[in-house]
Amino acid sequence: MNGPGRFDAAVLEAAAARILMACGVCDEDARRTANCLLFSDLRGVDTHGLIRLKFYVDRLRAGGNNPRGRPRVLREGPTCALLEGDNALGPVAGTRGMELALQKAEACGIGAVAVRNGNHYGAAAYYAMMALPHDMIGISMTNTLGSMAPTGGTRAVVGNNPFCFAFPAGEEPPIVLDMATSMSSWGKLFVCAQEGTPLPEDCFLGPDGLPTTDAAAVMSGGFLLPIAGYKGYGLALTIAMLTGVLAGWNYDPDIIHPYKQLDAPGDNSYFMLAMKVDQFTPAAEFKARADEVARFIRATPPAPGVDRVWLPGEKELVTERERRERGIPLAAGTLREMRDLASELDVDIVF
Amino acid sequence: MNGPGRFDAAVLEAAAARILMACGVCDEDARRTANCLLFSDLRGVDTHGLIRLKFYVDRLRAGGNNPRGRPRVLREGPTCALLEGDNALGPVAGTRGMELALQKAEACGIGAVAVRNGNHYGAAAYYAMMALPHDMIGISMTNTLGSMAPTGGTRAVVGNNPFCFAFPAGEEPPIVLDMATSMSSWGKLFVCAQEGTPLPEDCFLGPDGLPTTDAAAVMSGGFLLPIAGYKGYGLALTIAMLTGVLAGWNYDPDIIHPYKQLDAPGDNSYFMLAMKVDQFTPAAEFKARADEVARFIRATPPAPGVDRVWLPGEKELVTERERRERGIPLAAGTLREMRDLASELDVDIVF
Repeated sequence: MNGPGRFDAAVLEAAAARILMACGVCDEDARRTANCLLFSDLRGVDTHGLIRLKFYVDRLRAGGNNPRGRPRVLREGPTCALLEGDNALGPVAGTRGMELALQKAEACGIGAVAVRNGNHYGAAAYYAMMALPHDMIGISMTNTLGSMAPTGGTRAVVGNNPFCFAFPAGEEPPIVLDMATSMSSWGKLFVCAQEGTPLPEDCFLGPDGLPTTDAAAVMSGGFLLPIAGYKGYGLALTIAMLTGVLAGWNYDPDIIHPYKQLDAPGDNSYFMLAMKVDQFTPAAEFKARADEVARFIRATPPAPGVDRVWLPGEKELVTERERRERGIPLAAGTLREMRDLASELDVDIVF
Repeated sequence: MNGPGRFDAAVLEAAAARILMACGVCDEDARRTANCLLFSDLRGVDTHGLIRLKFYVDRLRAGGNNPRGRPRVLREGPTCALLEGDNALGPVAGTRGMELALQKAEACGIGAVAVRNGNHYGAAAYYAMMALPHDMIGISMTNTLGSMAPTGGTRAVVGNNPFCFAFPAGEEPPIVLDMATSMSSWGKLFVCAQEGTPLPEDCFLGPDGLPTTDAAAVMSGGFLLPIAGYKGYGLALTIAMLTGVLAGWNYDPDIIHPYKQLDAPGDNSYFMLAMKVDQFTPAAEFKARADEVARFIRATPPAPGVDRVWLPGEKELVTERERRERGIPLAAGTLREMRDLASELDVDIVF
């Protein structure tokens, strides 16, 4: 039973799918993309959920994103493949990439797929977690447009590229680390700029490459700061190498701004890897050990002022259970955007 | 021609190998281990070089480390293997693990090997970089004894587990990211404790789980702080899962303190992965793109007060070139330790 101002995930997903279909996306691809967006809304990762639907629709309508893109294999071996994303919706190409990696891992123990000519693919965890029901470890990552300067530099040479590692467990939640390589995000910058509040310390650089808390300075050519200095810059570059460069496609600074250039292909690349646990250790044993690790960490005595210790991905799972039960508290702006899109595209949606 | 106080790498390597042989290590394994230590001394990573020789010897003499360990395959598929390290010297088991991963990658495109019952393996880059001459991407990681608390917690649940990603390039240096998942290190703590200087800010926690700059507080049951809060804790846990847990061996908090328990097996596990670039993109094309990326990053205009921007692994390569030419400036203490070891073990070494 949904609480007030809350919406059923299945209802929202069906509505999002119908909106995408009205943009020329086939039934299956629209459902896949809607499922990917709702995955984030359910898990409380609202930044990657339906808030992105208008952005996806705008790019489809402007011609930047191909509604009928058909990802296809360009190169293939027993364990690896290169997939041409055909500028399809990110979740369409991303899912196809991970499915192929899973097939290869099922046959050979490991599968790895690089995907090129993709678009924004939502949450990295969506793909990495596809490995879990198969008792596989899943890895997913994507490059993004250049936004971070290297340590000591004043040019955006890497994106704040996110990645996810997912590990199956038994009775405990799977361990799912989904993170970007920046301290903060453009979203945070826009909020501070709008509200006129200072930026968090040590998260942004001005155009001169020096730390700043002035949103206006960052908006005029500044940068996101990588996590942990040269380590975060190195991690982001590692992802750039495994995605765009390995796929023979765009290196981060050559990727367009997907919000500002709605009519240009997104040019993201992804890297997906799946690995069967039982190639090393029987799956039941691995999952029992993962459970032990989870329980040990969760039982850590908290520091003063801290409620409890969480595992990577655990808060998201708790939120998902709650939102499946009580519905998703969709932001008013997102709800309005969906209604406007439905009206413009002549789609009947009922919440 | 070596400068004053500098020593030829080959001379030091031969001396270290002879010291290890005097502890019962066979010729090949002693040379391999000495080569791994010198790899770090040459690259300016002095914390992982000959400074560790006495530690290795002490563990061999105390029986914690098996001088005649013979790593063997416990489980094997076309792409994956589990290696029993037989408590051999870390570089012996580590090299065997990466060699097996390289063979599998040569045959199938990717190879991954988990190694259990290992010891301190030196620099992660030593193994990852073994992939480079084969036009492969190399990944190496190891778990270490629990030293970091999870976000908001007061118990050491993960080690400051290091990892390395290495990418081949053409004319430019390979991109080699070798990093630990902690802000600082136990080494830094010991130096500050000895000198009575405060610890760097935001790098250590006291036993209560709160940040401190008091070395004494950290020595009495405190923790290293992960990089970037929950992100670094998650990364360290990811490495724990891919090493000890995947290998069916020790999870970080169950690993002994290798310096304090010289007579107990080290219980480290490693994970090694090699992946052929040409499964995705022709190797020449990948390496040319890597060169372009390297040049683009290196040409980044520096921020005020900064000399130039560096690539991950580039400073180490510059140091290696310089030290191959001019010799290694071995610390007086390390030199004295080597001479003492040689004398105790009745080994003739001449610098």
